[in-house]
Amino acid sequence: MMKYKIALCQISSSPDKGENMEKARRYVESAAKGGAGVVCLPEMWNCPYDNACFRPYAEDEDGTSARFLSELAKTNGVCLIGGSIPESQGDLLYNTSFIFGPDGRLLKKHRKVHLFDIDVKGGIRFKESDTLSAGDSLTVVDTEFGRIGVAICYDVRFPKMFAAMARMGAHLMVLPAAFNMTTGPAHWELLLRARALDNQVYVAACSPARDTEAKYRAYGHSCVVNPWGELCGAAAAEETLVFGDIDVGYMERVRSELPIGVQAKEHVYRTDDPKETD
Amino acid sequence: MMKYKIALCQISSSPDKGENMEKARRYVESAAKGGAGVVCLPEMWNCPYDNACFRPYAEDEDGTSARFLSELAKTNGVCLIGGSIPESQGDLLYNTSFIFGPDGRLLKKHRKVHLFDIDVKGGIRFKESDTLSAGDSLTVVDTEFGRIGVAICYDVRFPKMFAAMARMGAHLMVLPAAFNMTTGPAHWELLLRARALDNQVYVAACSPARDTEAKYRAYGHSCVVNPWGELCGAAAAEETLVFGDIDVGYMERVRSELPIGVQAKEHVYRTDDPKETD
Repeated sequence: MMKYKIALCQISSSPDKGENMEKARRYVESAAKGGAGVVCLPEMWNCPYDNACFRPYAEDEDGTSARFLSELAKTNGVCLIGGSIPESQGDLLYNTSFIFGPDGRLLKKHRKVHLFDIDVKGGIRFKESDTLSAGDSLTVVDTEFGRIGVAICYDVRFPKMFAAMARMGAHLMVLPAAFNMTTGPAHWELLLRARALDNQVYVAACSPARDTEAKYRAYGHSCVVNPWGELCGAAAAEETLVFGDIDVGYMERVRSELPIGVQAKEHVYRTDDPKETD
Repeated sequence: MMKYKIALCQISSSPDKGENMEKARRYVESAAKGGAGVVCLPEMWNCPYDNACFRPYAEDEDGTSARFLSELAKTNGVCLIGGSIPESQGDLLYNTSFIFGPDGRLLKKHRKVHLFDIDVKGGIRFKESDTLSAGDSLTVVDTEFGRIGVAICYDVRFPKMFAAMARMGAHLMVLPAAFNMTTGPAHWELLLRARALDNQVYVAACSPARDTEAKYRAYGHSCVVNPWGELCGAAAAEETLVFGDIDVGYMERVRSELPIGVQAKEHVYRTDDPKETD
């Protein structure tokens, strides 16, 4: 059964895009040297996480950052989930993850489907939809390590998205993400562990490191969760590289010990709510 | 907005059914005196949790235990989620929760839909389906406190069941349950908190107390979780009464601050897997 290593580059970004790229290069190189076959960068790794920055930092699919990621994947011979960057297409902006194979080829891109629009009293208010447009499809990517699902940050709050990627055969869900100091302590680990346990898959979430000077303070705590719902690799808040072992054989064992996939009773869950089928 | 108190009777059962009933009576009385409007007993509260016991302890819908629960609800003026007991109907046995209103009327019953059939190497093996038959429908009950969903133990592993009850308008999901010393530490709190957070509802789970002499050792840790995914009432392993405050206004606030209900994109989650629609 397939076994391999994933690495999450928990790095913070500065307003200097070139600096962010150099840091990303160093971390991806270390990840590859450490034996990782799949490497992930954080959400908005080359841009401050701020609505005011998304347009000025945006690039299109053939821009400098995408070409940089392609070369980084190829040079290091890794499958690179390129965190996310603000992507421009015509007048629209997206929060997009570009995914490259070890030959530098763009395998797919994921545009964040669920924009981060929340307003927690006494906590955080953010409205990505002020500047960004939403993606409209699931992203599962076939790699040499098997099928991987990719989602971005707030997407993780929607269990049916993860259930759908699992149905499509993804054994690992990778999530570039930047939770904050309100929702991070409350929900980060809970959501990631729940998606892993409910779908009996691996989940790997890569956050920026926490920058206490930044306007948006990321929670950090990048981690890898196994299909039993246990952390099998985890960071605190600082810049670091997190490694996790992915073992498809272990996933199959969990699925046979606790066979919820075959025990589910779809006909029981149907209700007349139109939301179900719209 | 509606506010009320729920109480969970975390009691252990002995082979003596009469003794179990007397203990249940004492705890429900204390719960009512403590101001609880809704009271819950554990899974299989009047019977050892053992396939060998389910048939000898089974009763039908008009049996001694159901009549006892009806009288208990009425005497104490509470809505009583009667944990569960082995229910017989013809030759079949079910793991059934009888739910009574404060006038002693049977409001509904829930038959456990997902039988507990697992085999974790080095952990636990149990096969309820050796003796029990499965229920085949969701249970939401209209009470003076609003609509309450009821599920039993292993049912909690199926997120779509809880999503369906939430769509049907349940603001609280009550779960008589008896996790064990393998799955309890690993998954109990994670599953309960995830169901609460993902559906932005209250979840209240009532376990037997841990009996280290029993063949099946329950995990305990009965708890109430709020729609933000936080514990707002929790026990350790011993016999005790757990109170939790249910506040529908707070639930509405969480739903407006983090509006995932309206942000979900059902059309994105559709795949061609036949399991989705069978």
